[in-house]
Amino acid sequence: MSFGIGQSSSSLGVNGYDHHEAQQYELTEYGLLSKPPQYGDKYPDGSSIDWLHEEAVERERSYALQSEVGIRGALLPALDSVRMWIVVIATGVAIGLVGAWLDLLVKWLGDIREGWCEHGFFHNSVSCCAGLATTVGERCEFWMRWGDPSIQSMLGRSLLQAFIYVALAVIFGGSSALLVTRYAPYAFHTGIPEIKAILSGYVFDAFLTPRTLLIKALGLALSVASGLSLGKEGPLVHVSCCLASLFSRMFTQFRRNEASKRRLLAAAAAAGVSVAFGSPLGGVLFGLEELDTFANETDVMWKGFVASAVAAVALQWVNPFGTAKLVLFQVTAFSDQWRGFELIPWIGLGIIGGVLGSYLIRLNVEIAIYRRQSVVGDWPVLEVVGASAITATLSYLVVFARVPTSELVANLFQDCDPKKPDYHGLCNPSAMKENIFLLILTAFIKIPLTAWTFGMSVPAGMFLPTIGIGACLGRAVGLITQSLYRAYPKAWIFYSCPPDPSIRCISPGFYAVIGAAGMLGGVTRMTISLVVILFELTGALSHVLPIMVCVMTSKWVGDALGKDGIYSVWIAMKRYPWLPPVDYRDNGETGAHLMTPVHRLILIREGQTTVKELTKMLDEHNSFHGFPVIDSHQEFIGYATRDSLLRAIDGTRFSDDYENVHGKKCTFSKNFMRVPARERVDMSSALEQTLIQLRKEVPQELVVTMFQKLNTRQIFFTNAGKLTGMVTKRDVVTLLTSHFPHAGTLAKPLPHHT
Amino acid sequence: MSFGIGQSSSSLGVNGYDHHEAQQYELTEYGLLSKPPQYGDKYPDGSSIDWLHEEAVERERSYALQSEVGIRGALLPALDSVRMWIVVIATGVAIGLVGAWLDLLVKWLGDIREGWCEHGFFHNSVSCCAGLATTVGERCEFWMRWGDPSIQSMLGRSLLQAFIYVALAVIFGGSSALLVTRYAPYAFHTGIPEIKAILSGYVFDAFLTPRTLLIKALGLALSVASGLSLGKEGPLVHVSCCLASLFSRMFTQFRRNEASKRRLLAAAAAAGVSVAFGSPLGGVLFGLEELDTFANETDVMWKGFVASAVAAVALQWVNPFGTAKLVLFQVTAFSDQWRGFELIPWIGLGIIGGVLGSYLIRLNVEIAIYRRQSVVGDWPVLEVVGASAITATLSYLVVFARVPTSELVANLFQDCDPKKPDYHGLCNPSAMKENIFLLILTAFIKIPLTAWTFGMSVPAGMFLPTIGIGACLGRAVGLITQSLYRAYPKAWIFYSCPPDPSIRCISPGFYAVIGAAGMLGGVTRMTISLVVILFELTGALSHVLPIMVCVMTSKWVGDALGKDGIYSVWIAMKRYPWLPPVDYRDNGETGAHLMTPVHRLILIREGQTTVKELTKMLDEHNSFHGFPVIDSHQEFIGYATRDSLLRAIDGTRFSDDYENVHGKKCTFSKNFMRVPARERVDMSSALEQTLIQLRKEVPQELVVTMFQKLNTRQIFFTNAGKLTGMVTKRDVVTLLTSHFPHAGTLAKPLPHHT
Repeated sequence: MSFGIGQSSSSLGVNGYDHHEAQQYELTEYGLLSKPPQYGDKYPDGSSIDWLHEEAVERERSYALQSEVGIRGALLPALDSVRMWIVVIATGVAIGLVGAWLDLLVKWLGDIREGWCEHGFFHNSVSCCAGLATTVGERCEFWMRWGDPSIQSMLGRSLLQAFIYVALAVIFGGSSALLVTRYAPYAFHTGIPEIKAILSGYVFDAFLTPRTLLIKALGLALSVASGLSLGKEGPLVHVSCCLASLFSRMFTQFRRNEASKRRLLAAAAAAGVSVAFGSPLGGVLFGLEELDTFANETDVMWKGFVASAVAAVALQWVNPFGTAKLVLFQVTAFSDQWRGFELIPWIGLGIIGGVLGSYLIRLNVEIAIYRRQSVVGDWPVLEVVGASAITATLSYLVVFARVPTSELVANLFQDCDPKKPDYHGLCNPSAMKENIFLLILTAFIKIPLTAWTFGMSVPAGMFLPTIGIGACLGRAVGLITQSLYRAYPKAWIFYSCPPDPSIRCISPGFYAVIGAAGMLGGVTRMTISLVVILFELTGALSHVLPIMVCVMTSKWVGDALGKDGIYSVWIAMKRYPWLPPVDYRDNGETGAHLMTPVHRLILIREGQTTVKELTKMLDEHNSFHGFPVIDSHQEFIGYATRDSLLRAIDGTRFSDDYENVHGKKCTFSKNFMRVPARERVDMSSALEQTLIQLRKEVPQELVVTMFQKLNTRQIFFTNAGKLTGMVTKRDVVTLLTSHFPHAGTLAKPLPHHT
Repeated sequence: MSFGIGQSSSSLGVNGYDHHEAQQYELTEYGLLSKPPQYGDKYPDGSSIDWLHEEAVERERSYALQSEVGIRGALLPALDSVRMWIVVIATGVAIGLVGAWLDLLVKWLGDIREGWCEHGFFHNSVSCCAGLATTVGERCEFWMRWGDPSIQSMLGRSLLQAFIYVALAVIFGGSSALLVTRYAPYAFHTGIPEIKAILSGYVFDAFLTPRTLLIKALGLALSVASGLSLGKEGPLVHVSCCLASLFSRMFTQFRRNEASKRRLLAAAAAAGVSVAFGSPLGGVLFGLEELDTFANETDVMWKGFVASAVAAVALQWVNPFGTAKLVLFQVTAFSDQWRGFELIPWIGLGIIGGVLGSYLIRLNVEIAIYRRQSVVGDWPVLEVVGASAITATLSYLVVFARVPTSELVANLFQDCDPKKPDYHGLCNPSAMKENIFLLILTAFIKIPLTAWTFGMSVPAGMFLPTIGIGACLGRAVGLITQSLYRAYPKAWIFYSCPPDPSIRCISPGFYAVIGAAGMLGGVTRMTISLVVILFELTGALSHVLPIMVCVMTSKWVGDALGKDGIYSVWIAMKRYPWLPPVDYRDNGETGAHLMTPVHRLILIREGQTTVKELTKMLDEHNSFHGFPVIDSHQEFIGYATRDSLLRAIDGTRFSDDYENVHGKKCTFSKNFMRVPARERVDMSSALEQTLIQLRKEVPQELVVTMFQKLNTRQIFFTNAGKLTGMVTKRDVVTLLTSHFPHAGTLAKPLPHHT
């Protein structure tokens, strides 16, 4: 377990990579002294795994198993696959249970801010009143609001209630921040940018420790209950990956192989989304579109599919909401039909979503940079306490902001039904204008709060607040359209509606769904997975088309205002070695523009470089992952990694004349003849075989595509056998984030490290 | 338009590729004489496009546009993108309209087999009775059954009706086959295997001509109406791609670039599925999973998304079923809950689906091979006539087989509702045993009929019959479970059901959905897209989990019985150059095992090969796509394609001493010095720059992955600059289909070519 091992050479560590920049990637976890990476540390945190190498290791292990004789030869490979499925299913079950437990804890913590149950302190408002007939918004007699029986004065009671509401928000938020900063700094934020980076090969074991798991889950419950403008969706994906990492440690096959471990993590991430939204298909699609991991690996997609389904079953089995339904915000009362003219407000909502989404991203980036550069960053707990107090105070004043966002969204998605109780006067036709004003106000309160909260030192997801903002705006637009229709039922634009305005034609609840889709599209720039999640979330099957149209519009508008979604922006700011799956187009540049030319590379020369020189080279450039090897004619022999070179030098210890070894020359070809045998050391074992060579004249586009699709660490450029240059993954990442002005701004050790 | 250009060198045409085998890929379209490919024919049918080259061409075109000065420089690139969207949207609209028109035509043709409308001959049974209150299964008074008023005898009338039913089936089927064999032989079958091959780079322009489009659409309507055991889903994908190809010919940018054209075709395929199932999301996912085209190309996925949505809107606008619903087999009457014990029959249905699906594939393969090898293949129209007659006769005897499959499926998916009319006695509790028997009988009649039909010379899809078989079996299992429950309502296994058997606990309609999912899973081996399609198809949102479990089981069982789905099997039999997106694992082999070693390659030697020798080489090996170039030290210089070499030789015509050119030596390096300038011809323009080089020691697995992900045509193996071998796409295809005994059996010219 590499838990807590910091080190100083955490760069992608490739030759030709600027040493100065490498310092930015130092990772030091809470007080443990950093130490330089040693031979034997397979991958230090902060480096990138070598996929091709890991695959080769896995392959050799599987041959070894298959070549066992007799019953062992048949059983061991099967056992291998059983172990993998055990981890997948265990992760699914565990994240389902954790999700359900979180729901219950959050409900109880949230309710405690308003009152307590006479039956027993640990009942929430629903379980307290279970079996008693109550109407929505009303509590039963056993549920006591704070100060209810003892304080007689109305004003005094209200003040006490408001005080407790705000005070508990501050306490919850503060303790969440305290837990995170003190015990597991990586438990802050959503975790999705890091998961994306890890899945693509970044090594960040400190991010998936059991301690991070525990703190993230606890802190998430506290921060959600504090009423801060955040959701639990992203962090649940992180929790799910922590669980998978925990379970995978039981078996050597995953401990020893980073590639296999990543396949499990991808499945776990899908299960996390499945639980977060009650959307098993959405989970798989999220994995596919946003995490970009399943591409061409049907095997991994399949595991994600199973983990998602199992997690959803586990969640449904616990049934935390008592509804026996997976779908969180089930929408039931839509009319089956929609009318053509409604596309106008819906496209409008798409435009609003695209514009506000881009604005939210920009605001969030600016706040994050301000936090890092100003004194605020030194007092993370205080920042959260302040934010909690401000959020709670503002929310207490506006009725729609006071209730938990998930409750608000569920009610905004419902259409008005005379048979059902009215939710905070939302369906009162005489208060139409007030409602529209309140909804827009709520949205515009939530935008800056969300931009501020996402990035503070608490576990915080982006989905739910975004859905909340979008739903408020959507409902407002729906109410506006509805009142227009009621005012002018015979206008030509409404000709497809029944001329009698008392018959329902416009369904404001569905406008809220569309608003949420538009806003989410603008912030995350997801397309298909977003449509599927909303579709599963709301059950609005007949309305897939309008959701699609709105998401399309929102993405177009958003992309025009800024290319990256919120996660890409954070990845770029943290400069994780992640290649966005964009369709990169160069402007005529070739590989030659991107590569580090041969004269700037640190090279090993076969038959010339002595062991002493090599040792010095390894020492001086200890952030490099490896070195190209050339012969005396500049011809490219291969690539030797730092680790394998250290191993090879170490191996010479047992040779007969160890004392003279430092003067000997390194050779890599098996039958190298030019230097007498006693003057050379054979290092051919250190040479990597899986090298990709191109001409430097190939278009840059192709080089980028090869890195994206093959997940390789480096590509060499040769011409008629001679090395001309080398491109590393880091170079490609820098190229692809070059359009973003704040790339790398957060790529420093967290300031609140003790 | 390369319509109708056959040629003799249609192999993948790569060096090192067995010439004898090349003969198998000859494509000759209906009687046009085949001619050898000439310099200038960009890609002859049967070859594979060079993706890297096409991308480079597209890139250069786009630079040229951007470098235009002034307003043109701003407008032209925008216009480019507008043209692309025009084609995408036009294809969406067109396939939506074609789909709706086909639905209407099929309905009318199908109804005419039973009777005619007094109002007007061109009304179908629904439009004839529009506005009149009728019950399901009953017709209104204006709908006349054949012989109804004139023939008095009951027996005579029945015989006449049966005769007309069978006779019209034969006429429809026969004329469909006649149209296909006479005018567009490529319009037969589903088309999905070909589309998969084309999307991955296979050139097959004859498959996408307007004539094929017309015949496929007409023939499809006739063959569906004939009552043969086939569906319209796959062929609609083909029709959609033909439409896209037609529209794309309006603009040079697609005519000139095969890669851009393929991106459009991928979007069109998604739109086709969207229309076929009324499932816009399912269309996109089908493109993703089954066609495997969108991997990492968010741009293409996005186009597919738009085309799908537009097509669905167009279909809904025409509203061929008069229901204003997209969802074809809408299921409304499910109970919201399902019980744990129901997983047992559902997993059972998954197993049945896996086993029968594999059996159906095997049967279909055997029939296809028999057809090719026996005299049957020479009389395609007669075969269809026979099949139509047998199908119609058998179907007329069994009530559930007589109705159109889509109508049967829609009714099997519905639960019994006392308020609704009973469908052919399906809900009669006293006829339970008879119904179970009839349903199983129907399924077992349809299995061999489907296996026979899929591959005959008519447009024929596989989805609907498979759904039909699965739905029959599923409903039967549902009825069995229901009668068990009614017989033993208090058994411990049913404890979660209400003890009163009159309350509905088991929903046989949903069992039919599950059965369909299992059967489809077994035949197509799709997973996620299948779940999404069924989910959109039925609207059974609360039942996603059981569908997932059943599809999982079915895929596991199916994979254990035979690795490939129906489309992969057909691709392998036709030996299209398509790489399945499988996770290939080698057994320790390296690239050296796969490559053609250098001594077996036809090479051009720089400074040695004369123009005369080169011309001879080009002439002798005219099925090769290109030749590697090496220098006198065996060092690898590059690769020169046939086409570019011909162009370079052609260019020498204008040189001063053209008469001496044949004796001159070919050189490829710009500053080649060893041969005096007047004794050499510079051919450096023919050299390809985008070459990928590996060591021959790399694992075979990596080589396969590189072909799968980069879609390249060839990879070279070098060692210290010296060429050691070469692997082509064809070698990898052969490797990946080596487990399938019938690979290549159908890869000959169609026998009924005139």
